Amino acid sequence: MNGEIIAIGDEIISGKVLNRNSNFSARSLFHAGYLVTRITSVGDDIEAIKEVLRGAISRSRFVILTGGLGPTPDDITNEAVAVALGLRLVENAALRAVLDSIPRDEYPLTETQKRKLTHLPEGAEVLSPQARTSGYMLRVGECLVFCLPGVPEELEELIRGQVLPRLKALLPSDLVILQKTFKVFGLKEPEVQHRLDAIEFDPNRVLIGYYPNFPEVHVTITTKGKNGREAQECFENVKCSVKEMLGDFVVAEDDETLEARVGALLLERGRVLATAESCTGGLISSMITRVPGSSQWFDRGVVTYSNQAKMDLLGVREETLRRHGAVSQETCTEMVEGLRQRTRAHYFIAVTGIAGPTGGTPEKPVGTVYIGTGTPEGTSAKRYQFKGDRIRIQLITAETALDLVRRSLILS
Amino acid sequence: MNGEIIAIGDEIISGKVLNRNSNFSARSLFHAGYLVTRITSVGDDIEAIKEVLRGAISRSRFVILTGGLGPTPDDITNEAVAVALGLRLVENAALRAVLDSIPRDEYPLTETQKRKLTHLPEGAEVLSPQARTSGYMLRVGECLVFCLPGVPEELEELIRGQVLPRLKALLPSDLVILQKTFKVFGLKEPEVQHRLDAIEFDPNRVLIGYYPNFPEVHVTITTKGKNGREAQECFENVKCSVKEMLGDFVVAEDDETLEARVGALLLERGRVLATAESCTGGLISSMITRVPGSSQWFDRGVVTYSNQAKMDLLGVREETLRRHGAVSQETCTEMVEGLRQRTRAHYFIAVTGIAGPTGGTPEKPVGTVYIGTGTPEGTSAKRYQFKGDRIRIQLITAETALDLVRRSLILS
Repeated sequence: MNGEIIAIGDEIISGKVLNRNSNFSARSLFHAGYLVTRITSVGDDIEAIKEVLRGAISRSRFVILTGGLGPTPDDITNEAVAVALGLRLVENAALRAVLDSIPRDEYPLTETQKRKLTHLPEGAEVLSPQARTSGYMLRVGECLVFCLPGVPEELEELIRGQVLPRLKALLPSDLVILQKTFKVFGLKEPEVQHRLDAIEFDPNRVLIGYYPNFPEVHVTITTKGKNGREAQECFENVKCSVKEMLGDFVVAEDDETLEARVGALLLERGRVLATAESCTGGLISSMITRVPGSSQWFDRGVVTYSNQAKMDLLGVREETLRRHGAVSQETCTEMVEGLRQRTRAHYFIAVTGIAGPTGGTPEKPVGTVYIGTGTPEGTSAKRYQFKGDRIRIQLITAETALDLVRRSLILS
Repeated sequence: MNGEIIAIGDEIISGKVLNRNSNFSARSLFHAGYLVTRITSVGDDIEAIKEVLRGAISRSRFVILTGGLGPTPDDITNEAVAVALGLRLVENAALRAVLDSIPRDEYPLTETQKRKLTHLPEGAEVLSPQARTSGYMLRVGECLVFCLPGVPEELEELIRGQVLPRLKALLPSDLVILQKTFKVFGLKEPEVQHRLDAIEFDPNRVLIGYYPNFPEVHVTITTKGKNGREAQECFENVKCSVKEMLGDFVVAEDDETLEARVGALLLERGRVLATAESCTGGLISSMITRVPGSSQWFDRGVVTYSNQAKMDLLGVREETLRRHGAVSQETCTEMVEGLRQRTRAHYFIAVTGIAGPTGGTPEKPVGTVYIGTGTPEGTSAKRYQFKGDRIRIQLITAETALDLVRRSLILS
């Protein structure tokens, strides 16, 4: 049950936008047991679309085509599909009625734009007739062609609500795909690979992939099988071995994040966290508060960017700042203690460092960061030397700090 | 001077990773005057790579092929290229010497892995002989084929440092491409389009593209011309008209962000900002402190997630919280005033709201947010009703708050 994806748009081939639609489509199909063998992007060019679409149909049982269904002049997918398949464009009365029912001030369309939106290749089955830009399906011999809008929210809803159910009904897949991702932090990719080299498994049935995803390395185990039970058994064995070899360097699994893991551990223990950030400027608290329900285990954060803020909000002593500087173990320790004295939280993170590009010195070059943690057992602050640009230094600092809390929680 | 990009990897066609490499390559080439007409992704499959590579060579003056050059068994690009072009794989002595010189504990490679990394298709010109994974160029008739590693940092350095200079020397482009992006916030896409419909321009010489980039809409003007001066003139005219029609809804241009724009305006006026965040949880301060040099115009932020934190750090009165709730105009106003009394900043942002997925009530459903701003002229706090999931509500809240500060700064 192999298929292909075709993304249409000058904005993709000129590098203006990332092709997230193809990525979402491919991932959704893969997890439902459908293999995508090729993803092609072409511009708003009828000849190019025609050639690519014909090629894909000749090789595949299904084709997902995205983009170019809107009302503007550069939207030419309907025309290109009609030309490629030798079909006429005919008005879809239901779609026309929907567009006519939308108040003009809500979605102002000219008659030309309406004609464009409602004239579809003959035989098109509209996927979601109530939507403004709905997408449609065509049957071309043995192949199902889905034409979908390029607006990500519309596309995602149609893939989930229309494309997958129709594929399952019309082209049931006998393939079971099982996948597990371990998110690893604190080991370099060759170290991860080295640990996993020791595991014996059948490479014809199981695949292990390594994907650097700064600052993490993601290890993905994939099993494809015709038989659910057989696939499951072999998958479970490899999964356990991989987990054992990676040990406590696994900070999260699958769609979970490190910060959600930290939250789950705090919640289990009835503990609360507070943060004090200088060089990460709120990134840590922002990561934390992206997690739904974080108000149950996160009390507050302070972003003490200036020295004055460090004194006002954390009681860091002026003398400490003068003698040791804002980026020092002493200041970092006082930041943790400031949080401890001023809040009712149980775990504390404090970071201060030089994220660059300026501000470095020979003794404290760009990337010098102190990370302090406070737990019910005590306080510690340690110096780190990170590499990379400002954004990467902020990211790895945040991840390291959260991982320190995770590690102290799993030991507690 | 048309070319194509081919990305290799099961992780791309299964949707495990986003194809950022093709996006980066396409964008770099486009701005240097080279048009990419097709981007194709295929899996780790010699037959598929062979077919796609031969097709691309037959249509193009250059091909960029990325991924599959590493030492692991799924890296098969060298072999696939050799098969596709009928070339032998021969050892590159210089590359071998580099690998042999790396201490084993730094980059542990087996003999098999070394052989894999150093056996390249006959005629390969290594792009950067000192690198571990260097990439190479092949001349196939009139076409230049560049094989590049899939690690983003390595790829980006090679595109900038090797591929573009070689293309310019071997296939000079006579195309001048000019591009300008206006980042718009506060207008919906149809409203943007409606405003720009009034502008007259030659569609054969200028393209205007609209790209929703939540919560912004990006408007891109592109001119392609054989003659620098001619292209420039026509480009300038359209640029001025577009800017005029979009007016103060343009929050930033090109690579600039709204937060960097706010920073530039504050710096010009010698003013400093402070923030108090509840539902955005540090996102606003994190956006601000991603901007290099933000310490010159950002003093501090507080993430007052709990009621206790709002009282401790901002002096919000217990009675206010009890009578009106944490998500109320009264609390929001006291948050701004708390910042004003406790800091030496001049501009203030305070947000409190319900980002969801839980916590909504009939009177204050998920997406209810109060945004307060303080300026030297006064304080105001207003209710907003946003739609979407937690992350989108946080994003649009942060953007709205920063935009309010931008608007008060341009009026000051």
